[in-house]
This record gives sequence, C-alpha cells and structure tokens, in this order.
Amino acid sequence: MKEFDLIGRYFVDGGYQRKDVVVGIGDDCAVTTVASHQQLAVTTDTLVAGVHFLKDAPAKSVAYKAVAVNLSDLAAMGAEPAWISLSLSISDIDEAWMVDFADGMYELTRYYSVQLIGGDTVRGPLSMTITAQGFIPPENALKRSTAKPGDWIYVTGHLGDAAAGLDILTHKLDAGDGVKEYLVNRHLFPTPRVAAGTALRRVASACIDVSDGFLSDLKHILRASCCGAVVQVDKLPVSSQLRDSVAPQQAIEYALTGGDDYELIFTVNEEQRGNLETALASTGIKMTCVGQITGQENKIDLKDHKDQYPMPEITGFEHQF
Amino acid sequence: MKEFDLIGRYFVDGGYQRKDVVVGIGDDCAVTTVASHQQLAVTTDTLVAGVHFLKDAPAKSVAYKAVAVNLSDLAAMGAEPAWISLSLSISDIDEAWMVDFADGMYELTRYYSVQLIGGDTVRGPLSMTITAQGFIPPENALKRSTAKPGDWIYVTGHLGDAAAGLDILTHKLDAGDGVKEYLVNRHLFPTPRVAAGTALRRVASACIDVSDGFLSDLKHILRASCCGAVVQVDKLPVSSQLRDSVAPQQAIEYALTGGDDYELIFTVNEEQRGNLETALASTGIKMTCVGQITGQENKIDLKDHKDQYPMPEITGFEHQF
Repeated sequence: MKEFDLIGRYFVDGGYQRKDVVVGIGDDCAVTTVASHQQLAVTTDTLVAGVHFLKDAPAKSVAYKAVAVNLSDLAAMGAEPAWISLSLSISDIDEAWMVDFADGMYELTRYYSVQLIGGDTVRGPLSMTITAQGFIPPENALKRSTAKPGDWIYVTGHLGDAAAGLDILTHKLDAGDGVKEYLVNRHLFPTPRVAAGTALRRVASACIDVSDGFLSDLKHILRASCCGAVVQVDKLPVSSQLRDSVAPQQAIEYALTGGDDYELIFTVNEEQRGNLETALASTGIKMTCVGQITGQENKIDLKDHKDQYPMPEITGFEHQF
Repeated sequence: MKEFDLIGRYFVDGGYQRKDVVVGIGDDCAVTTVASHQQLAVTTDTLVAGVHFLKDAPAKSVAYKAVAVNLSDLAAMGAEPAWISLSLSISDIDEAWMVDFADGMYELTRYYSVQLIGGDTVRGPLSMTITAQGFIPPENALKRSTAKPGDWIYVTGHLGDAAAGLDILTHKLDAGDGVKEYLVNRHLFPTPRVAAGTALRRVASACIDVSDGFLSDLKHILRASCCGAVVQVDKLPVSSQLRDSVAPQQAIEYALTGGDDYELIFTVNEEQRGNLETALASTGIKMTCVGQITGQENKIDLKDHKDQYPMPEITGFEHQF
C-alpha cells in the first residue's frame, strides 16, 4: 500500500472542519488564514515508542497523548489551538490499530475544534511528530522568561498521577483497583489545560507545562527568567488517588519529579493575584499556590511547612523507560 | 545529555532571523505574525534513514534534503517560504555529525531567508520531520485539482538525474567521473523550485513537485483534476549528464519514473501560455512543455513523436531502497 493511500484512508477528512482552513489534506500544502488581530503559536513534539510511550500502549492512547502533548504546549503559551499536522511512522499497517489511532486523535481534536490539515505517513519504527498551531492576541503570549522575584508559583490540577500510572503499567507500583484505573488513565490520556492557558493571558507572568516533571519544568522558568524559587512541598496538589496508593514521602516525590502530567506551572505577581480566581473560575480548573519566585538565580529551596525538605535525587523525567 | 541541551547547542539561534518571528526557539511555542494580505501554507514531510535517504548519507545532505523537500512542497503550492520546525530523532549524539547536519540545514534556510522556529530532538532511529510554512496571497495557491483538458503540461529543470544519482551511490549504475558527481549531487542536494513556484502564481492552472517520479506525481494532478494526459517522451527534459551515462531508453525510464528530482510539474492553459515566458524569465529556470491534459480520466498516453510508447512497469518511486 502506498503512503498516500494510507493517509487517504484514515485521515482524509481531517476531522473537525474549520472555516479558516482554505485547503485541507490532499495537496502539496494546506492553506489557512490567520485573523489580522491574532499571532500564530507553533509547536512541534515527537513521541517515540519505547521512549515516550510504552511499546504496547493502546493506539487510542498513543494518538490522544501525541495530540494532548502538543495542545499542552499551546496552552502553556496561552494560545487557542487551531490546526495540527501529523507525521506518523509505522513499521506495518494494522487496520484495527489505525482505526483506534484515528479515533484517539479525533476525539481530542473534535473536542478542541482543531482540524488536521496535513502530514505524512512513512514506513519506519513507530513514532509520530505533531506540529500544532494556534492563535494568541499580540503581547498575550505566556513566556517562560518573564517571572519576577516575589511572583507566586501556581500549578493546575494534580501532580504525580501520570508517573504513578506509568509505574503501575510497568509493575513498579501496585494500587487498589478503582485507583489504579484513574492513575493509569492520567498517564494514557492526559488533559491539555487549554482553557486554563487562554484564561491566564494577561494574568500570569510566566507559564510552562509539566512534561519532564514539576522541578525540571520549573527550572526552565527559573533559567529563562534568571530567578530562583521556594516551593512548599506540603502545598503540592496530590490527588486522593495517589495519596491513597503510596506513602506521603513517595507522593511528594512523584509530585516533584514525575513527568507527563501536562498541568501548567505559572507565576502571578501580587497585583494580579486578585484576578486569578476570576480568570480561572469559568474553567473549573483547580489551581494551587505552591511557592514563590526568589532572586536567587537557578536555586530551588524545598520547604515542608517551615522545615527544609531534601532535594530528590532524580530531578528530571528522562523519557526513557 | 538532555534533549533540550542538545537542541540548545546546535540550533538555538534558528539561523536566519526574520522580523515576523516574535518568539523563536526556547519557549513552549514559537510565536509569529502573518501579514493580513497573506494566507499561510503549511506542509510536513518526514525522512527516514534507509527509506528516504541512504543510511550512510552525509549529514549535510540529509539536513539539506529534509529542508529542500519541504520547501519544494511550498514551491509547488506557489508559497514563499518563511519558517521551519524540525523534529530530529537520532540514536546517539555524534558531535561532528550534528555540526554537519546544522550546516546543511542553515545553508538552505539562509539562502531562502527561512528561520528555524522550533522543534524537538528525541532519541530513536535516525529520522526527521520538518514542518515548513510560507505565505501566499489569497486565491493564488497552485492546487493539484484545477488542471483542465487542453492545458499544456510543463516541467522545470531536468528529470531523472536524482534517481540515476541514487543508482550510482548504490552501485547499480556506473558513470564517468565528471558526470557521476553531478548526478549524485542532484540526489543528495536537490534544489527546491521556490522562485519558479511563486512566479507561476496566477499563470499555472495546477502544480505539483516531483517526489515520487514524474508519472506518479502527474497522476496526482490527473486524479485530483479528473483528467488524463498525453505525454511526449521525446520532449522529456533529460540532462546531458544523464544522456551521456545511459542508453536513450533508460534515460526516458529514469525521467518517467525516477523520484526525488523536486522539479515542478505544472499545467498552463492556452491563454496563459504567452505569460509563461515572462513569468519564469527572471528566475532563470528552464521549463519544457512535455504534453497536454486530456478529458480521459486518469489515463496517461505516452508518445514518442507520433508513435505510442509503452508504459514503464515501475510507475512509482516507492521510497524503499
């Protein structure tokens, strides 16, 4: 079967149809329009089997996650998602796998009104690259480099669930039946915080999404902003499911170092703090203040209430199973 | 070494700097602006080692070709290139290889004033996905679906050189020393027909680039436009280097079925034919009329002067070495 036949069969309609797509899948390029009051946000992420997802991960989850990871990058910039391009490398064609893959992708793109506008399918080891694009009004982009000493550090949702879910799948962690499914699903089907990202425009001073792990990703903000941080580990938002599954110490470790949560870490200055509740209220997304930006460049102080808390040894999720 | 360090080291400045890039490499997304009188053309192509390029191909050629293939898609749409995103999958980090790779990429992006705005680097089998973006004024996109019976079929440059170059590299073909280098370079460093693509706006009725091979790619136009074609094999533009290296019959076969030339196949109606010389004159790009569109859906008639010419068995370049 030829490459283009494969694309044609499973992806030809691009799912959700947007008015700003002039030419969709099927030509040398897609052609789209950008409203004159918008800027374009562009991000590219690749997921490789055995590196970014388990080799036996369900096709639906693989596609869902590949899209979610990219929409999460748009969210972290404050952008509203619009289009994705998909390049899929597969070693051979399994009809059922392809159907599930398309399902997983379209479930998320429909929900966020995102159109697949093109891509490529090649024969090779299983991996996929998605380029996602979205819109932000000028001057509204949430950068990493604009946190200031004194700003408060917040995080959406819960931390550590996805890493615990991965450990359950790889038999490194056991958990009760009801809890297990929840944690595994947080790993397989992460939620990109799109609504939170756009709500935080003009409110947050800096923003990033949690892909490598809370500490690793916070460090990106600190490095880009030439700042440090104090983090209250006692404030880290840990789900009841994770809390019920592991010792308190281990829950904190998951929350600090576990990757793939795709929550947003953002900073807010004192003056904007009052607007935060209002901004996020309509999204229904939980947020928690977990610390404060300091002037001590690249230094993170962990505190448990008033005590110093030891820095965990693994400070990054290396994306290597 | 971590993924982001790798990106940082070799690609951080993005090469050529454009004024329409508000945020470049280093944040969750790039942020760019699109002028209000322009539409956006977007294309994605993946190259896999051992499938789209030889496993021992020089790094410089691999990068050059990956960019060229994408700029060629923009050219085939009539778009002016602006930005690329690169996702690079490599099994391990070889400093010299990376330097050559960056060189090959930036050589082409500098020439075309294209900025690298982001991407991803992952550990995995060697492959790369590039998403390229460019601009076209509204209604100017050169589609595949708009050829009409009676339109003349043209092709830029020469056909078959890249396939002959590949055959030289894989020891399936021998050629004289001066000629060998030329043909191999046509395979390793293809020229995207960017200037021709933009010059053909409002002149060509349909356009595609030659990646799979002349016949295969012409078929894409025929299928999309619900037409057929008569092609004069005696008119096919074959370089003197190719003509000197193989029998006449074999040269025609290379020209008809060889892939990776990245020339443009385009159609022009009778009224626009007079404007064609003027449109392409400033680009210095050779063009040759090789046939005519017919109303016989999906049928290609090959003619050698007035005689019927047999259809070659291999009608597509399968991108499998």
